[in-house]
Amino acid sequence: MANSKLRVLPLGGLGEIGKNMTVVEYDGAIVVVDTGLRFPTTEQVGIDLVLPDFTYLRERAEDIEGIVITHGHEDHLGALPWILRELGTDIPVFGGPLTMAMARSKLDEHRLKETDLNDVRPGETLELGPFDIELIHLTHSIPDMMAVALTTDLGTMLITGDYKFDQTPVDGKPADVSRLAELGREGLLLLCGDSTNADRPGFSPSESIAGPNLEALFGRCDGRIIVTCFASNIHRVQQVADAARVHGRKVVLVGRSMRKNINIGRMLGHIDVPEGSFVQPREANNFPDNKLVIVSTGSQGEPLSALRRMAHRDHPQVELHDGDTVVFAASPIPGNERAVNETIDRLYHIGCNVVTPADTPIHASGHGYQEEIKLMLNLTKPKYVMPFHGDHKRIHLHGELAKSVGVPEANIFKGENGLPLELDKSGAKFGKRERAGMIYVDGVDIGDPTDVALRDRRMLSADGIFVVVATISEQDGSSVADPEIIFRGVPYSEDAEGLLGDIRQFVNGSLARAAGEEIREIDLLQQKLHDDLAAFVYDRLKRRPMVLPVVVEV
Amino acid sequence: MANSKLRVLPLGGLGEIGKNMTVVEYDGAIVVVDTGLRFPTTEQVGIDLVLPDFTYLRERAEDIEGIVITHGHEDHLGALPWILRELGTDIPVFGGPLTMAMARSKLDEHRLKETDLNDVRPGETLELGPFDIELIHLTHSIPDMMAVALTTDLGTMLITGDYKFDQTPVDGKPADVSRLAELGREGLLLLCGDSTNADRPGFSPSESIAGPNLEALFGRCDGRIIVTCFASNIHRVQQVADAARVHGRKVVLVGRSMRKNINIGRMLGHIDVPEGSFVQPREANNFPDNKLVIVSTGSQGEPLSALRRMAHRDHPQVELHDGDTVVFAASPIPGNERAVNETIDRLYHIGCNVVTPADTPIHASGHGYQEEIKLMLNLTKPKYVMPFHGDHKRIHLHGELAKSVGVPEANIFKGENGLPLELDKSGAKFGKRERAGMIYVDGVDIGDPTDVALRDRRMLSADGIFVVVATISEQDGSSVADPEIIFRGVPYSEDAEGLLGDIRQFVNGSLARAAGEEIREIDLLQQKLHDDLAAFVYDRLKRRPMVLPVVVEV
Repeated sequence: MANSKLRVLPLGGLGEIGKNMTVVEYDGAIVVVDTGLRFPTTEQVGIDLVLPDFTYLRERAEDIEGIVITHGHEDHLGALPWILRELGTDIPVFGGPLTMAMARSKLDEHRLKETDLNDVRPGETLELGPFDIELIHLTHSIPDMMAVALTTDLGTMLITGDYKFDQTPVDGKPADVSRLAELGREGLLLLCGDSTNADRPGFSPSESIAGPNLEALFGRCDGRIIVTCFASNIHRVQQVADAARVHGRKVVLVGRSMRKNINIGRMLGHIDVPEGSFVQPREANNFPDNKLVIVSTGSQGEPLSALRRMAHRDHPQVELHDGDTVVFAASPIPGNERAVNETIDRLYHIGCNVVTPADTPIHASGHGYQEEIKLMLNLTKPKYVMPFHGDHKRIHLHGELAKSVGVPEANIFKGENGLPLELDKSGAKFGKRERAGMIYVDGVDIGDPTDVALRDRRMLSADGIFVVVATISEQDGSSVADPEIIFRGVPYSEDAEGLLGDIRQFVNGSLARAAGEEIREIDLLQQKLHDDLAAFVYDRLKRRPMVLPVVVEV
Repeated sequence: MANSKLRVLPLGGLGEIGKNMTVVEYDGAIVVVDTGLRFPTTEQVGIDLVLPDFTYLRERAEDIEGIVITHGHEDHLGALPWILRELGTDIPVFGGPLTMAMARSKLDEHRLKETDLNDVRPGETLELGPFDIELIHLTHSIPDMMAVALTTDLGTMLITGDYKFDQTPVDGKPADVSRLAELGREGLLLLCGDSTNADRPGFSPSESIAGPNLEALFGRCDGRIIVTCFASNIHRVQQVADAARVHGRKVVLVGRSMRKNINIGRMLGHIDVPEGSFVQPREANNFPDNKLVIVSTGSQGEPLSALRRMAHRDHPQVELHDGDTVVFAASPIPGNERAVNETIDRLYHIGCNVVTPADTPIHASGHGYQEEIKLMLNLTKPKYVMPFHGDHKRIHLHGELAKSVGVPEANIFKGENGLPLELDKSGAKFGKRERAGMIYVDGVDIGDPTDVALRDRRMLSADGIFVVVATISEQDGSSVADPEIIFRGVPYSEDAEGLLGDIRQFVNGSLARAAGEEIREIDLLQQKLHDDLAAFVYDRLKRRPMVLPVVVEV
């Protein structure tokens, strides 16, 4: 083992925000840290979810000693069902109790019952093959967030997960800085830290700032209050419930994921409210407006979320009206601004008052700012640094922060998905690139990353489709019925009838020419029809709808 | 004329940001103020541009005395070619000289040569039917922005267009507050003011702040500098050119609209630089990196813009590299954040340094903030207020500002597109709703607003399409060839071949049943096939691709 290599291979989360997943390898054994997903961009038309391409693990499934999940957010946990389904449900999975409860609920929905989930508490150590593993409690926007320290003969590396140094967390359990400092004193080999807020100067505000501001805000509201935040932000919901109690209001939870997460949170003791604080949505109408706070999903303007449906006057239980105050206790994630703004504007149109974090401090980021990233570096004193969880910009900026606290530039590795960092006694360097990328979840299938279906969909969505069916005789290739022409999604044209007639005539001409040239092979004939017709349609419409010729021989 | 009504009918710009257009009517005569467009949202798949539905004007074309354009931005000017083409190119159009030059360039591109464009200078008055019209110079992010005062027997109304009160504009020509004050002293009947920044407290910074900050920034750059901003922001480009000159750098203009607008600006004297300051893109390689500033389109991450192509290493003239500094002298418009962030991240990946308005003040909004909106209200002292240019939120907030300076709530009209405000001697109230909405520009056609093509495209883009061609005998409806099945954009499936075989079998079964039930009418048969097959496909794929059955009788 003297010349064993430690390989750290990110399969997701570098050069992007989301789908965090890392393979750590030593002496033939593998531990996977996090199995996250991300949500599709508008370019990824019709795609439901995006997972890290884990082909690398498919070939090495039997070497996996375990999967460790830092916390219960989708971008760290969400891909777990697909990965276990493909690689084997017998792979042991480890994480904090809340994280494992959320994993179990997710696996249940995927009907994966026989899995091996294991609660780990902070400070406990695990032995997974050649790795000694310890989970270290840090603070984030969900309870039970734990950094993962992996120790081998070469030393200790730390994957931070998502963290901030909240000195006054709502549950009174700050990050275990003492253990981080101890790692630093022992000498940390490698730090793989969160870069999400590497572009924000200073320290992040504490989650606890939200409580008093929510309480003051509620005191200014006469009517009903609707608060929207992330369903997994259990401490935020706790603070909303506390503020509601001060003003004698009952709390109603609306939205499936909100109800599910808060239920789990209550069972595990993360939510602490007196009996009777929560009421069911169906009971809400028994209370006057000024005795209610509705807590709802939809802070990102998600299409099917409860708040979006309320804003569109399409929610079965909650009908908004003049005098309601809607409180956004979350900021839009980049890319969601338009959906959030549209939702807000609909709320104004209904006559609601809308309050956002731009108006009063009712949201705190779960990711540490620049000074916290520096604090992490100074506490753990890593020899090598590989920034995690960030697009190229944030990884670059995290690298600059590492330089600013004295890490030599040569020891800072700005990585990419699929690029393994290899460490041994002699040093660290990037190794040979491995396969990494995206796989799509589309309905029930996991798709191939090079799927042409997406390209087709983009084309179909841009300009629509023409289908032309030509029926020819098996004997001599002559047309035996007038061509059928169907179009969908093609620009409206005053002159559609004329155009269809012209196309029919053009197809007949093209078929006759083909028959003259003795082109009889169906594929060739379809190709020829396609090329001729595409040019004709472009000439007429100045658009390029998909042209799909079907030649039927009878 | 004692009981004549003044009607102010917004066809666009209320309850939305963009496509500003207003019909002002008195005594049977119409003046149109602004003819703007907006850009499609991602929901409006495959649409190129969105115009106001101007059906109302189609029926009243002969009553139009003229069109007045406040300034040359797309959201005030862009729909002009379509409107003139439909309503008549003989309708006279009025605006400032730069506005008219931009209109001419636009109309030329649409091959509308014989139009009636008329330069109007501030302070000049026009007589259009019963209207006395005066254009009043205000400041904005494009020169030659003019508010429109329309006077009838009933009094004077003012449509502000887009404005800020810039006390130190780059061209030294501040807003004509004196004339606005005079209108106030005479007693303004109605103010229709810009609401774009009704949500921002305080005063907007002056455009002139950008110059010194650009100069200081350029001084810190060793390599090439690429600045991106709006192509119409002529004063910003002037400031970039000034800063470049200070540091001995030549300026290269890249991107079609940038070159076009700056050419027009130079011809009209809005850009003032010494001979030899600008060099052609093809000459740029003759200069060392530290002697160049490239000014480029693409500040909003637009797909085909010069900067986006550079970021994708796909620009024919400019290849970016390590050491280049890219300066975003513009903020992303809401909805463009993701495209801008993606562009920035690609620039970091190339190794460029990126500077944005979040880093140093190199951008100033062209729209006045809350204190400027109040100043406008206090200067003009309107009896009635109808906020313009804003979504419901901003119109609401503009209304609150009007209340705060003493306009009675009953005199504040929060309008909507299609809802005319009617004023006469007895007062003001909303009249009967007129048709208003969107029309789409899609390729060469203007589409119907209720076009099903869009719904089809959304469906196609979400789940793709199955085309099934069945050939049956005219005699007895029996199948004479195996059904052809083609799919596009449908999720990849390992089992595609099996699925196709099953579908073929299913279609044959469905056809046989139909023949048994004596269903022979083609439309009915297709409907039945569609319903059967859609259910079968959903059952197998858990997706709803469009199903398009074609039955051919031979």
